[in-house]
Amino acid sequence: MTDSITISVDAMGGDHAPRAVLHGANLLLQDRGDTRFIFHGRQEQIAPLLAEFPALKPVSTLRHCETVIAMDEKPSQALRKGRGTSSMWMAVQSVKDGEADVAVSGGNTGALMAMATFCLRPMEGISRPGIAAIWPTLRSDIIVLDMGATIGADAEQLVDYAILGSALARALLNTEKPTVGLLNVGTEEVKGLDYIKEAGRILAQASGAGFTYHGFVEGDDIGKGTVDVVVTEGFVGNIALKTAEGTARQVSSYLRSALSANWLSKLGALFASSALSDLRRRMDPRTVNGGVFMGLNGIVIKSHGGTDEIGYKSALSLAHGMARNRLMDKIGDTMKSFP
Amino acid sequence: MTDSITISVDAMGGDHAPRAVLHGANLLLQDRGDTRFIFHGRQEQIAPLLAEFPALKPVSTLRHCETVIAMDEKPSQALRKGRGTSSMWMAVQSVKDGEADVAVSGGNTGALMAMATFCLRPMEGISRPGIAAIWPTLRSDIIVLDMGATIGADAEQLVDYAILGSALARALLNTEKPTVGLLNVGTEEVKGLDYIKEAGRILAQASGAGFTYHGFVEGDDIGKGTVDVVVTEGFVGNIALKTAEGTARQVSSYLRSALSANWLSKLGALFASSALSDLRRRMDPRTVNGGVFMGLNGIVIKSHGGTDEIGYKSALSLAHGMARNRLMDKIGDTMKSFP
Repeated sequence: MTDSITISVDAMGGDHAPRAVLHGANLLLQDRGDTRFIFHGRQEQIAPLLAEFPALKPVSTLRHCETVIAMDEKPSQALRKGRGTSSMWMAVQSVKDGEADVAVSGGNTGALMAMATFCLRPMEGISRPGIAAIWPTLRSDIIVLDMGATIGADAEQLVDYAILGSALARALLNTEKPTVGLLNVGTEEVKGLDYIKEAGRILAQASGAGFTYHGFVEGDDIGKGTVDVVVTEGFVGNIALKTAEGTARQVSSYLRSALSANWLSKLGALFASSALSDLRRRMDPRTVNGGVFMGLNGIVIKSHGGTDEIGYKSALSLAHGMARNRLMDKIGDTMKSFP
Repeated sequence: MTDSITISVDAMGGDHAPRAVLHGANLLLQDRGDTRFIFHGRQEQIAPLLAEFPALKPVSTLRHCETVIAMDEKPSQALRKGRGTSSMWMAVQSVKDGEADVAVSGGNTGALMAMATFCLRPMEGISRPGIAAIWPTLRSDIIVLDMGATIGADAEQLVDYAILGSALARALLNTEKPTVGLLNVGTEEVKGLDYIKEAGRILAQASGAGFTYHGFVEGDDIGKGTVDVVVTEGFVGNIALKTAEGTARQVSSYLRSALSANWLSKLGALFASSALSDLRRRMDPRTVNGGVFMGLNGIVIKSHGGTDEIGYKSALSLAHGMARNRLMDKIGDTMKSFP
């Protein structure tokens, strides 16, 4: 028998919390019977939901907290108000205390990053945390980081991201030696910003230590899946992610209007409906939900705040997979093998 | 009778030059009978093509140049070798000399930017040129700049881009007072990089002078078409553009495999074939081809180098539209009205 995985959950984080959160947990439990949950939040709201999901109740612990961090609160304000008392903080604290393997919240990203950094502290040798995204590509899922935990970066930070991203790829993507690329405006050695070129020199020398350095990659290499890990500074990563989301929505919208353009295309869509719903599933942003906070002494996952139970299930499933595949150990190994 | 538009063309620029270039010109001529061409390049290669396109010949001038700039030449090297002698330089020189309204090249971007800047010089009051893209969105086409003419920017440069982009929007998008947004990682005033916030303050004060300042926009606002002009630094703009291209290709590829998944979906695709080919046209990168070099004393358009006659026709058509709508005058007007 394998050990169970315990996920600490900010039950109050997100637009449809706590219902969507608990519903998502119940969905995950159907797939992963080895999951245990600690829900942090308002007892009077959570208890009736646990009663509604009878399978969930026996594997869950409810921890009451009165304070809830609002979606628009500034990180500093959230930290002052919610440190030690809010559902968000307590979800992270459970990881620090070792009673949970991983924490998940759909709350305010800035506040969650501030609390996670303050509570868990950066790992030794890592200056600042990053947020990694799991990005579906034509080849397979890949890791892209940083998605905006930090604005601005230097060469060392990009190297840290390469190490963290490689460990995540080893934990999630079933590859022992992931390939790493640095996002740049051209693939030639002479192009781009100085700190990226410097990071390229360091990574080229360290290539082989838990990852293979591929070189520079461009924006369109992300969707192609040219490498397993794409490393970039947080401002650029955030713009790239949101631009891709916008483009995917735009193309889906074009497709919808094309298929409802006339009765013939509507008939065609009917015949192709099973294939098209596969496509819709593939394009559904809820199936890839969860930014992974990397570089702290513990794993925290940020779910989209606006998502529903399907989205929460994805974020919780990602959390489960990372704990099951011992992400923290893999980060430690990769850091140790780095020259 | 309206005056004709003269386009100066680097006939040797791009992977399929000069054939694809002249073929594209011939296609444009069928739509825009008021176009005249000056082709710069090797006489022995261009003359037989002009004989092949009998309609094109009488409206074209051929200027022989022996030197051709290679796609992988460094800008400084290209400038030394090709200044005053290459087809690329001469295409730009025709604009400077006033014998052409606009120049088009499918050659090496860095070399073209170096030559255009050296030959035409930045406009008074503009420190460095930018490259603008016409970006199709869910609402209408919009302008996004800079696409990578310059890496790194300060507040003044972003303001320059806002002025240039607004003038381009007025020339191409049929709007008298375009809305302008600054690309950022959040829409709140407090977020992002200092130089972007500073540009935001300047644009908020100048709002009304030829454009309406909307505020910050995020990556997914590009595809939505939230504003007419999206302003960003060149590194970020280049990554955003290529990431969007990669995502569009990725989704198209998903769609293709969905529609060929089984006989039912193939039958569906057959019924919907006319609607799907509309979609394909809409997604065809050849129909939106051409980076506009802005901020110089003359207009130069960079076509994709790998494109075919359809792509060249699009780039030439863009050139025609900008000359016809007096882009240079509109830039001057917008600059004059800026406080």
